[in-house]
Formats: sequence, C-alpha cells, structure tokens
Amino acid sequence: MTGAPTPIRKGRRKRALEVATPVRTVDYRTLRNPFPRMKIFSDDEVHAIHHDALNVLETLGLKVLLPEARAIFAKAGCKVDESDEMVWIGREAVEEALKTAPASVTLRSGNPERTVLYEPGALIFMAGAGAPHATDLERGRRPGSNRDFREFTRLIQHFDVLPILGPAIEPQDVPSHLRHYAFMDAQLTLSDKIPFTYARGTPQVEEVFEMLADFHGLSQTQFEADPWTYTIINTNSPRQIDIPMAQGLIDFARAKQMSIVTPFTLMGAMAPITVAGALTLSHTEALAAIVLTQLVRPGAPVSYGTFTSNVDMKSGAPIFGTPEHMRASVGAGQLADLVGLPWRSATGSAANLGDAQAANETQFGLWGNLLAGATVIMHAAGWLEGGLTVSYEKLITDLEVIQSVAELCVPTPADTAARAVDALTEVQPGGHFFGAAHTMQRYQTEFYAPLVHDFSNYGTWADRGGEDATQRATAVWKRILSEDARPRVDPDKVDALMAYIARKTQAGGAPPVSS
Amino acid sequence: MTGAPTPIRKGRRKRALEVATPVRTVDYRTLRNPFPRMKIFSDDEVHAIHHDALNVLETLGLKVLLPEARAIFAKAGCKVDESDEMVWIGREAVEEALKTAPASVTLRSGNPERTVLYEPGALIFMAGAGAPHATDLERGRRPGSNRDFREFTRLIQHFDVLPILGPAIEPQDVPSHLRHYAFMDAQLTLSDKIPFTYARGTPQVEEVFEMLADFHGLSQTQFEADPWTYTIINTNSPRQIDIPMAQGLIDFARAKQMSIVTPFTLMGAMAPITVAGALTLSHTEALAAIVLTQLVRPGAPVSYGTFTSNVDMKSGAPIFGTPEHMRASVGAGQLADLVGLPWRSATGSAANLGDAQAANETQFGLWGNLLAGATVIMHAAGWLEGGLTVSYEKLITDLEVIQSVAELCVPTPADTAARAVDALTEVQPGGHFFGAAHTMQRYQTEFYAPLVHDFSNYGTWADRGGEDATQRATAVWKRILSEDARPRVDPDKVDALMAYIARKTQAGGAPPVSS
Repeated sequence: MTGAPTPIRKGRRKRALEVATPVRTVDYRTLRNPFPRMKIFSDDEVHAIHHDALNVLETLGLKVLLPEARAIFAKAGCKVDESDEMVWIGREAVEEALKTAPASVTLRSGNPERTVLYEPGALIFMAGAGAPHATDLERGRRPGSNRDFREFTRLIQHFDVLPILGPAIEPQDVPSHLRHYAFMDAQLTLSDKIPFTYARGTPQVEEVFEMLADFHGLSQTQFEADPWTYTIINTNSPRQIDIPMAQGLIDFARAKQMSIVTPFTLMGAMAPITVAGALTLSHTEALAAIVLTQLVRPGAPVSYGTFTSNVDMKSGAPIFGTPEHMRASVGAGQLADLVGLPWRSATGSAANLGDAQAANETQFGLWGNLLAGATVIMHAAGWLEGGLTVSYEKLITDLEVIQSVAELCVPTPADTAARAVDALTEVQPGGHFFGAAHTMQRYQTEFYAPLVHDFSNYGTWADRGGEDATQRATAVWKRILSEDARPRVDPDKVDALMAYIARKTQAGGAPPVSS
Repeated sequence: MTGAPTPIRKGRRKRALEVATPVRTVDYRTLRNPFPRMKIFSDDEVHAIHHDALNVLETLGLKVLLPEARAIFAKAGCKVDESDEMVWIGREAVEEALKTAPASVTLRSGNPERTVLYEPGALIFMAGAGAPHATDLERGRRPGSNRDFREFTRLIQHFDVLPILGPAIEPQDVPSHLRHYAFMDAQLTLSDKIPFTYARGTPQVEEVFEMLADFHGLSQTQFEADPWTYTIINTNSPRQIDIPMAQGLIDFARAKQMSIVTPFTLMGAMAPITVAGALTLSHTEALAAIVLTQLVRPGAPVSYGTFTSNVDMKSGAPIFGTPEHMRASVGAGQLADLVGLPWRSATGSAANLGDAQAANETQFGLWGNLLAGATVIMHAAGWLEGGLTVSYEKLITDLEVIQSVAELCVPTPADTAARAVDALTEVQPGGHFFGAAHTMQRYQTEFYAPLVHDFSNYGTWADRGGEDATQRATAVWKRILSEDARPRVDPDKVDALMAYIARKTQAGGAPPVSS
C-alpha cells in the first residue's frame, strides 16, 4: 500500500503500538446485574398494588384516543364507550397478555457482536434521551440539531457500556416530516448498535421498518423474527393513551419490534403524591399498553417500564435522584418481578449544569435502578434540567460512573495468587508493595483506568490550570469525535439507504401524526 | 421578660411560627441500614482469607514497636522477639479475643438522646476527618485552624444524620501539646454528640478521660461502663503497629473506651495490589490489634475497620470511589460478618475541588459501604484530595446525599390510603393531581426537602446568578454558623472544664508521643 495513510491504517498502527503495553480489557458489552435486590414493599403490598391496578382497569377504565385501538380492545371483549373514548379491561385479558408477552427479547443489529439480550438480569445502560437542547462548554446551550444528533450517536457508539442507541436530542433543524430519515441515516451509518425509532404515526414507522429491513437485507419474516429497533411509549398519565402512542403500540407489535411502555408518572402532578399511589397508576397504564400489544400480536416484544419520580411541590418541576425517585424505582422493580417482564427504569437530574448536584442526583437515581434490578437504565449519562438538555460533558462524567459499575460485573479473584501471601512474605513490616513481584506482574492491568477523573495532587492540578471534571470532559468528547472511528458498514447498503432517503424526501417525506 | 430579644427567645418565636406550616420531620438520629447486602466472595473465599490472615499472624508475625505491647503479647503466650520487635500471634489468641470483644457498643454523651448504638445493622455517618487543610469558597484553601475545627464541630452538630464527632481538620495553630484541650473544649461545649480523641500517647489520653469524666460527673466505674469517646487506630501497614497506636489500643482498652482499628491498606502501595491480597493484610492487622485490646481488658469495646482502596499506579496517589475501592468495601463487610464485630468503613475522593468527580467518587464509595453493611461510614461528607482537605461546601453537598439515604431508612407506606385509589377515582383521564384531596393532605410533608439542590428551571436559575451546587453551599454553611444554635450545656461544667484547661496549659500541657 502506498500514499498517505488512511484513517484505517492509522488506527491499525495505533493498535500495534498498544500491544507493547498491556492494557486492561474488560467486556462491557454484555453485562449482568451484580447487585443484590432491594425491596421496599412486602409481597402482600406488591400484590395489593397489582390488584388495585386490575380494579382500576376494570372499574375506572382508561381513555384511548385512537379508534383502531378501541376497536382492538372491543374485539377482544373489553367494554368500550365510543362517546367518551373509554376502555375497561378485565383481569383475564391482563393475565392472558402476561402469558404471551416474552420474558426475554433478543435485540439485533447488523453486527452480531452487538446483539443485546433484553431480559431480567441483564444490565443495559442508555445515554440521556429526548432533550430539546444540547449543551457543551465550547458551543453553549442551544436547540438540538442534526449535527448534535450525529455527534451523540458517534459518542454513544464509542462506549461499549452503552449498547443501545437513543434519541439523545431532538434535531430541530430537520423538518419533522423528514426527521425519521435523519435518525436512520445517523444510527445506521455512524453506529452498529440497536437503533431507536420514534412512534410518530404509521407512515414514518413503516418507512423506518422498510429502511431497516432493506439495510440489513431481511425478508419480512426475518425482520419479524426478532426486533431490530425499539420505541418508547409514554402514556399520557393519568389513564390516557393518545393517538401516536396507541398507534405505535399497534405498529410495533404487528411487526414484532419492541415497545418499551413507560408511563411518566410524576408524584403529585400526573400521579398521586404517594409512591405506592403513583406506582399503582403507572402499573395500571403499563398493563393496559401491554394488553394492547398482545391483542395485536401475541408474543410481540414489549417491555414493562416506569418513570416515576416526584415534582418540587413549590414549582411543579419534575425532579430526579430524590429519595422518592429511588423508592419508586425499587417498588417498580418489585412490580416488574410480579409480571415477569424485562423492565425499563431511568435516572436523571434537575440540575442546570454538570455540577455536584447533577452528579449526585444522577448517581443516586442510578443506584435506585441498579438495586431494583432494572433491565435497562435510561438517561444514565448526560441528562440535565430534568431532560430538557443533554450535555456532552455530563455524558462523559456520568460514563465514568457507569464504567465503574460495569467493572463490578466482573468477579473479584480470591484464589491463592490473589490473596497474595507470597507478596505478604516478600515485603517486610513497614515496607511497601510498589516493587513486589506480585505488583509488577499486575500493575498495568489490575485497576480500572479512568476516563476523566484526575488523580494528580493539588499543586500539580492547579499548575495544569485547575480544571474541574466537567471542563476536562470537553477534551474527552472532542478527542473521541476527532478520532472518527466508524463501524464497518457496507458502502453499498449506505448508498441504497441514501438513495431511499433522497427519493422519499423528494416525494414529500412522511408527516408525523400528533395527538 | 423585657429588653432586647435574646437569641433563645428569637429561636422560640421562629419555632412558634413554623407550627403554622407543617414541616416534614424524619428521625435521622438512629438509623438502621435498609439496603440488601452485597457479596463479592463466596463463603469459602472469605474463610480462605481469614485462614491466610491467621497463618500470617502465626508464621510471619508483625512488628510491634511499643515494648509494653510486646510484653502483653508475651505474657499471653505469644512468641516475641525483642531484638527485632516481632510478635507472632497464635490462632487460639484470635479466637479468644473474638469471643470477648463486644458485638454491640453503646456510645454515650451527656445528652441521652445522643446515645449511639454502635453495632452491626446500625448506620452511622461521619464527616470527613483528619485533614491538614480546610477550604471554602470565601476564605480559600488553608492549613486547618482551631477556628475551622470549631466551625466544623458546629456544622456537624447541626446535622442529626452525623451522630458522632470527628477530627475534621488538624488545628495547626494550636501547639501539639495543647491540642487535646482544644479538641475537648470544642467538642464538649459546641456539641452534645460523641467526641473523638486522638491516641497520641498516655499523657494526653489520660487527661482527656479525666476531662470527660469530670464534665459528665462520672465516677471511674461509671466512665468505664460504656465508652464516652473513641479513637481511630491506623496500623502502619504492612504488618506494623507503632508506639502511639499500640499505646492507644492499650490506654483505650484499659478505660473501656472504644478503639476503631483501621489498617490503611492501599492496594499496590502499603498492601498487595489485589483486592483479596489487600484485605488479607488488612484483616491480619485488624485481628492483631483486636487481640491486643482483649488481652489488656477482655470485653473492651473495639471496632473492626478497614480502609482499603487503591493507588493511581502512575503517581502512587491514593484514590477513592473506584471500582476497586467498592470491591474492597464489600469484601471487608464479609470479613466483618465472619468475626461478628461492628465495623468501620469509609468513602472518599481524590478530587481537588467539589466538582462532578468529587461527588461521583464520594457517592460511589458510599454505596460500596452501604451495600457492605458498614456500621459507620467515615469521610462521608466534605473530604477532598484523598483526605488532605475538608471542604465546607462539599460537607453540605455530600450531606444532601446522606440525608437522602437516611430518608430511605423510613418505610414506604403501601396501605390503602397510600395506594390512593380514591385519588385515581377523583382525577379524570389526562387530568392532574395537584389539587386532589389526597395531594392537598400531604403536599407539605410528603417529600424530602433539599438542603442545597436547586430545582428551578434554567431561565430562573440563570437569572438568579447561575450558581452551581458548591457555590450555593457557601450560603448554607454560613447560615448554619450564623444561627449559632448551641446545645444545652451546664455553664458550671463549662467553667470547670475551662479552669482545668487553663491550669493544665499553665503547667505545660501534655506533649504527644511520636512513633
């Protein structure tokens, strides 16, 4: 090979150099939750919440705005009142749905190494998602753009500990009738991880399914064998499912793609102020949505989900990482156990910048999710302002915590060599182990290497400019983006995708469906 | 009563006003650990570490620099080599000591409401301790002074969630031969919580015991019935106990005051680089110190303790809140279980300021301690720079996390009222619960009220000056200090203490004993 080095060759040379110095390698891709399970409710209390939810479904019912969804419920024998769009669901329908909903879902991407087993016991982290704003210390806080969306996709791609893509920010410079094209473009060409799809009506969703099947070269049967994308369904708490959400549940179930059902039940606002009350409502709504998916297609992949936190009763603002948020996560985990489905939880922060509050709230909420046995933990990195902004720097500082958690998924050796009596014999009282043979064999790979944490002493740190972790994080995300490491993607498939998008764009795109 | 209002009257009027608005009251004084226990080792592995430690004590031995301590070991039948100051301890001596060391210790102060039950299952938080520097945003980073010591004592006194005093910073403007007087002055007159005493030789320790017995009006028998103070004994890892530490173990055991034995075993530096190896060493040293206390006086209160974290292998700097630190905490908890003693753990941070790193490291280490079932968690608030500085602001931001944990010690109601079907019935689909009767009854007291976290939206927050949590914390600690709320202390006792200190100071004080 001659000529100037290509990025690929540069990458290879770098890897060759790294072989000389042993580097710690830990598989962060397929994690199982290593933490013990916490409980806040007795088994009787969990059953009482479940039975209250069943009673609410039967006697109070819920409002379903989409006629097609009401027709599906009616056809299955549920009582429906078309005049006020109400549906009442009997407990037999719930029991039946919980029998057919799969407890384990295999999420597939074009790269088999990126397959994600989505099931109880798995531990899947996701970056912050759904924010209207992006922020970083160089470019400031701004409405999210397609450039931000693409950059976040590349940053998420970089970290093995984030196996699933999410809609970090809303690319508001892309017209809404073309936004699903931008999503697929970024997610399929800049990443080989599981892509996310917004449920914004059948026209967009069907085009996404078409793009995915074409890109991966799948027949309809192959596409429906396992999900290749997923969506998040937020009910309109209390007790309402709007048109795009109901349509999403139907469309995804029909194509056997995964819906993650997530009532957003803020205690004191859209839900009762008590943890048990908010979970009763959340559980009610989740069950209704799960029933709909299974009525559409028994066996359709659907995830139980909750996002129950509280509001600041002075301002009404949603808050996260609070004691109440943690209680709700743990209680939700107990309800997920009861229904036997994988489940989606979330952490978060109400802070307006990446300070100690932001770190503490996000990590506190994270531990609630971890001890609750959550399958997937959303908003685990980068989320600020209760979800109104995703921060490039906070993505990095939060990933330090997530990677530290991932390290704990690896067993701690305690064999004879690890117990190190040879080293204890070698080093005399009052001595040190820096030069011990036991240390020399291990010092390059024994410990987790930090991403952004700085261990230099005060003087050295101050001399270097005294930057805080958030300031240092700027250099980290910039380095990752500058390295421009892309997954191996078939250029012909990329060309075909681009041609599809160009053709569809010219034909007017697909407008989203609103409620 | 006439004349200008005194601070006491002001306080009363304020309390009277507060009655009008219900305030959430949760007892943070007596907490039990509500979290499930994590394990990183199998039971066989825990036993293997214990047996390796017993073998090290028997065959490798440890160096004990204090002749009196060696004499005590020799008298009990341990092999002693006076020429190189080595002691070898048989497993029978360890077994005997673990039989007589109490599993539950009652720490007493002058105020019965401040009694602390120090035993497995209890959850006791302590502020950062032992730092040479103090820092705050107004006065900067500086050598710790008596003013800082007194201010930290008052800040710790303010928070019920910190039931035990600690030596936050070293008051370096007080000569070392008088420093124990300054400690007792601050701890007994500005607080009614359990005071800390440095083991810096018999002369100082005996004077402290005298001050304590006089202040509380106790006979020798009463003083020795339960501990009224405690000390921290750091072994000189590896395998060495220096003169002041050995003397402290002896002096405290003789007077039945509590020693917390804490080998400071940094993986890769003073301990083997592996978690299991560092814990084997830590366990060895802890057992040796525990044996010494029980040989001096069977039944003397002694706490198992560990402080095992890793060092940055590039710089040798101690680091905290790492995955390795968490593994070590959890493993240490399993060893503490095996010996059946209460145990001391710690969190910490290597960060140089109160940023996201500082918050994340401290909270990560905290969760390691919590899931390890630690009795006391030291350095849980304020610690920076790996213990070289205690920060006024970080004390406050960390306390937000600690109070949030304390909230979780309270059960989560799930009775019929909490499940809130009445509210679910009252609020129509798509409505909200802000005005529901269920909400109105509870909104003032349902949620934890934050100390320093700010829930305002970005615009409001920016308009108010855009302060981060650390900046906001300045106002919090300043408010607490300005309120000047002091515990009720008998002025005659204070006078007597001051007279004692004046007399002893004039007589030349008591020089510390060095190693």
